[in-house]
Amino acid sequence: MKFHLFTVLLIMATAPALHADSPQISEEGKACLECHGESTPGIVEQWKSSAHAQKGVDCYSCHKANEKDPATFDHYGHKIAVIVTPSYCARCHPGEVKQAEKSHHAQAAQFIGSLDNMLGEIVEGGPAANNGCRQCHGSIVKYLGEGKFDPATWPNSGIGRVNPDGSRGSCAACHGRHTFSAATARMPENCGKCHLGPDHPQIEIYDESKHGIQYRANLTKMNLDSKTWVVGKDYSAAPTCATCHMSATPNQPVTHDVGDRISFTLRPAISIKLDNWERRRLQDVCSNCHATGWVENFYQQYEATVNLYNEKFAKPAKSIMDKLYAAKKLTPTPFDEKIEWTYYELWHHAGRRARMGTAMMGPDYTQWHGFFEVAKIFYMEFIPEAEQLLPGVTSDVMKSDYHKWTAGLSKEELQQQIDFYKERYKQ
Amino acid sequence: MKFHLFTVLLIMATAPALHADSPQISEEGKACLECHGESTPGIVEQWKSSAHAQKGVDCYSCHKANEKDPATFDHYGHKIAVIVTPSYCARCHPGEVKQAEKSHHAQAAQFIGSLDNMLGEIVEGGPAANNGCRQCHGSIVKYLGEGKFDPATWPNSGIGRVNPDGSRGSCAACHGRHTFSAATARMPENCGKCHLGPDHPQIEIYDESKHGIQYRANLTKMNLDSKTWVVGKDYSAAPTCATCHMSATPNQPVTHDVGDRISFTLRPAISIKLDNWERRRLQDVCSNCHATGWVENFYQQYEATVNLYNEKFAKPAKSIMDKLYAAKKLTPTPFDEKIEWTYYELWHHAGRRARMGTAMMGPDYTQWHGFFEVAKIFYMEFIPEAEQLLPGVTSDVMKSDYHKWTAGLSKEELQQQIDFYKERYKQ
Amino acid sequence: MKFHLFTVLLIMATAPALHADSPQISEEGKACLECHGESTPGIVEQWKSSAHAQKGVDCYSCHKANEKDPATFDHYGHKIAVIVTPSYCARCHPGEVKQAEKSHHAQAAQFIGSLDNMLGEIVEGGPAANNGCRQCHGSIVKYLGEGKFDPATWPNSGIGRVNPDGSRGSCAACHGRHTFSAATARMPENCGKCHLGPDHPQIEIYDESKHGIQYRANLTKMNLDSKTWVVGKDYSAAPTCATCHMSATPNQPVTHDVGDRISFTLRPAISIKLDNWERRRLQDVCSNCHATGWVENFYQQYEATVNLYNEKFAKPAKSIMDKLYAAKKLTPTPFDEKIEWTYYELWHHAGRRARMGTAMMGPDYTQWHGFFEVAKIFYMEFIPEAEQLLPGVTSDVMKSDYHKWTAGLSKEELQQQIDFYKERYKQ
Repeated sequence: MKFHLFTVLLIMATAPALHADSPQISEEGKACLECHGESTPGIVEQWKSSAHAQKGVDCYSCHKANEKDPATFDHYGHKIAVIVTPSYCARCHPGEVKQAEKSHHAQAAQFIGSLDNMLGEIVEGGPAANNGCRQCHGSIVKYLGEGKFDPATWPNSGIGRVNPDGSRGSCAACHGRHTFSAATARMPENCGKCHLGPDHPQIEIYDESKHGIQYRANLTKMNLDSKTWVVGKDYSAAPTCATCHMSATPNQPVTHDVGDRISFTLRPAISIKLDNWERRRLQDVCSNCHATGWVENFYQQYEATVNLYNEKFAKPAKSIMDKLYAAKKLTPTPFDEKIEWTYYELWHHAGRRARMGTAMMGPDYTQWHGFFEVAKIFYMEFIPEAEQLLPGVTSDVMKSDYHKWTAGLSKEELQQQIDFYKERYKQ
Repeated sequence: MKFHLFTVLLIMATAPALHADSPQISEEGKACLECHGESTPGIVEQWKSSAHAQKGVDCYSCHKANEKDPATFDHYGHKIAVIVTPSYCARCHPGEVKQAEKSHHAQAAQFIGSLDNMLGEIVEGGPAANNGCRQCHGSIVKYLGEGKFDPATWPNSGIGRVNPDGSRGSCAACHGRHTFSAATARMPENCGKCHLGPDHPQIEIYDESKHGIQYRANLTKMNLDSKTWVVGKDYSAAPTCATCHMSATPNQPVTHDVGDRISFTLRPAISIKLDNWERRRLQDVCSNCHATGWVENFYQQYEATVNLYNEKFAKPAKSIMDKLYAAKKLTPTPFDEKIEWTYYELWHHAGRRARMGTAMMGPDYTQWHGFFEVAKIFYMEFIPEAEQLLPGVTSDVMKSDYHKWTAGLSKEELQQQIDFYKERYKQ
Repeated sequence: MKFHLFTVLLIMATAPALHADSPQISEEGKACLECHGESTPGIVEQWKSSAHAQKGVDCYSCHKANEKDPATFDHYGHKIAVIVTPSYCARCHPGEVKQAEKSHHAQAAQFIGSLDNMLGEIVEGGPAANNGCRQCHGSIVKYLGEGKFDPATWPNSGIGRVNPDGSRGSCAACHGRHTFSAATARMPENCGKCHLGPDHPQIEIYDESKHGIQYRANLTKMNLDSKTWVVGKDYSAAPTCATCHMSATPNQPVTHDVGDRISFTLRPAISIKLDNWERRRLQDVCSNCHATGWVENFYQQYEATVNLYNEKFAKPAKSIMDKLYAAKKLTPTPFDEKIEWTYYELWHHAGRRARMGTAMMGPDYTQWHGFFEVAKIFYMEFIPEAEQLLPGVTSDVMKSDYHKWTAGLSKEELQQQIDFYKERYKQ
């Protein structure tokens, strides 16, 4: 073991060991390297450090045009594709591409619709959507001929990109040009390019969780460059995003269908259990480091918290919005009235943070970025704004057990609060 | 030195060198490993890489039930505790546990009271408090018998956890199951699980400070795995949270009482000096890398800034709130009126960030997340909201020297502003 | 290559190899080390690990007083400067200091004027400006004699610091006392001390960009300790801040004038192209890893997005503010009316984030922290607040093509939105 891990470190430090004139490289590849070693030396060096280079997979192996791809051009006598789409990667990695194609990732470009699309495309404006939304979700790439692309649609490495050849996705979104590294894709930072920010802060939550802390503390023990990467066997110091959602366990193979193990939808306004709840694929990952009782109890905590969000805040807020639209107190155009922004931030931002913080065990996101904001938006913005639009519209909701505290605490409850504050802060 | 540090790196890379069949392991421990090597291989591997494993401290050494612990169960003929509480750790580490027990950390579960408890338990709701507040502060763990716990109270690794055996705290909160690593506890990420976010962003401030920058830049020189870890002797590249608040200096031993060196309360609405101000235990740490004049001047800057916060914003705001309550313009129930949220964010969020940013030398937190927000909330939310509730209630405050600028700048002052903007931005 | 990179790692781990009694050290230096090895051991150890120490540049080499420096004092028979200003560094590094002196960095103390100064100095208060603004921008250091400084002005390591000897800047702001490391200055964390937060979140954007992800994933391949550091030659795994803005390329030398390559102003309310747009110094850096078509298209995306911000939000907002001031609906005093804060956050905070997010390819900053906030502030705060002050003042703006959606979407457009939401979220 001693020497094994040391070797890993050595490999991490010494990977770029291959030379361009290595015998395995094709004649075409050599020609590519000759020019591009001068014009774009960075990517040539990156490639040299890759597993591809070590196996003789060269520039031409990947960029050689597929016959049916409309977005190719003649480059010094060779038909070349600028964009290496999943169809190209599938020439060697058909299984991985197939898994990825049926995943949510591959549909991410289509996801920018409805409210989000209205926001990006109309409220903000097209170029904002191109450099914002679509750099994660993916653009519909438009080829202009002669190796040129519509700049509104490319460069783009969004994971749901619709490529000129009809394929969906971008393997480089996770595997990084031009190293195409499995290790990079296993690192949480990689997922954090898109899974971050006010509306889906998975990387922030991971970073503050015990999982993220152990990962940072034990980076050299993660064995990230290993060919197989089975939790509990090839590494055990910490899980990354890939560990739970994609990588192999002793009982499950690696999958490139990233949604295959999740058991709750945390994206929509109201969360629902998925059939995966029963399949317990994610729990199988947990069980490599946590006893059954721990995992069972955690899922009960998780479900209780999602239900609290659903029943106390999400469903009441939705019912109030429905009434306001029905009473024509709001126009049907989204985002032209204040309460539409308030409601959107309630569920799409704070409400997701509360749920995702719980799912991934980040207490600060659950509480301060999550439920604290949910409650503040609900009680101090949403309810007063709704009442102003249609007096009485919130009455039923506010009479429920969840919200009756707003009618006033008892004397005893109040004294308890005051005593505690004085005891704690001595002022 | 050359070989010493290289050895450290080697150790970091090669720690998991021990095998399960190592001769020091007890018979009971071997039985544990046999099953758990299959059922929870991750934690077994973690333990193998630990100092515990290298000294023959095995599963049974820690999980063997204390006689007086009510939360134990019979597991294949052995009385086992699921939760290894500080009482268990004290069997080998009595000094550390004693220090931790008298620290603020050990009382963290009790701290969730008053306003914060009202927020978590009532305004947000119980499950939110379980997955939010209590995952840092600690739950009061309730045992259900037969190795099972009330899921509302466990899993929980909050540092002030009240355990079934009456002990307070969770050593694993910092030392990480199942490596129990001193190195992890010395890393800032570790503290950042709880010391982060809008209301106590110590990790964010550290990360942006010179201290954090030097730490990231010099991770391999930090000697984190050293048995003794005395600043200026065992390492000097950068201080971590532990360096200043806990670890040894040439003049002070390591302590697990984390509040023992701080000299100002930065948590309550109004900050006060502690007696530690005179004892200067934290300044002793500074002096390993900073000359006396530097340290003295820094503490003057720090005190001036805390005083500014106290006198310009915190005390006036509190006096206005007191008048509003006295005039019955607010109900005694907390958080049912807008200004109560405003005041809370003024002191508990922005006001803490301003003070903590200064204390730990993060200029962005001092300014943009701190005083900028304090001023914005004070002038644009708190004062107008108070005036609307009770006209005139802010008059005395607003006439003070601190706030008289709001009555208008002089012509000369105004021209200076305009000229500067034009000069700077050329527009 | 194999051995080369391994050597680098070895050097990283073993740098502090020099001893205080090394023959190159001056007699004066030895005397310094004798006391300060006891009184401030941390900085002595840091220095021992530095390139300075390895070349015999000792304490006295740097701290020996310049004749014309007023801020020096007699220290055991030697005239000593506490603050080693750029004038001192220029004794050995004249070229670097000259470049730095003509950069924006060296003028940063002057930048705190106008609105920002009003904010820091008056609205927030002097001590807040000292510990906030000036710790990045730099103070005007005031010497009190006998080795003592005005604590309002020092400690300060702001990059635009005005030193008692008249020089501007602080080399230690980037090169870190007392290692003075080139490697540290090449690391993004270093720049992140000041380039972060709500109004210039460069480090956050970098961290979420592909560039930052590749950097974190390939830290051991960055060759940061190399004497020369030419992208595409000495390293290629990822660019850091220094790579693009300062460090050498095959076509450009390293520069300490940090603004020398940028082609757009992203700081003011309205962005303008600089003459560097034509010089394409930054594009030269890109071209080491990206083909010409990629770089050209990216710059078109970038420009389109900055123009969207300018034309749709920034210019209209400025014209409305101008009308409000002209109509005397606002006092000339800044920050005493709500809309002044709103406008400031529109351009100085959200508007910068939108533009900088695009410039550095962070989609989340472009969208959620950028244009989403820009649009929310513009439509839901700025426009209503302006209308309340002067009804009709926004009419012309709101009639433009950019904003006409607020008058209502067509039935078809609306149905599309509704269908999409239902399809996506199944609710």
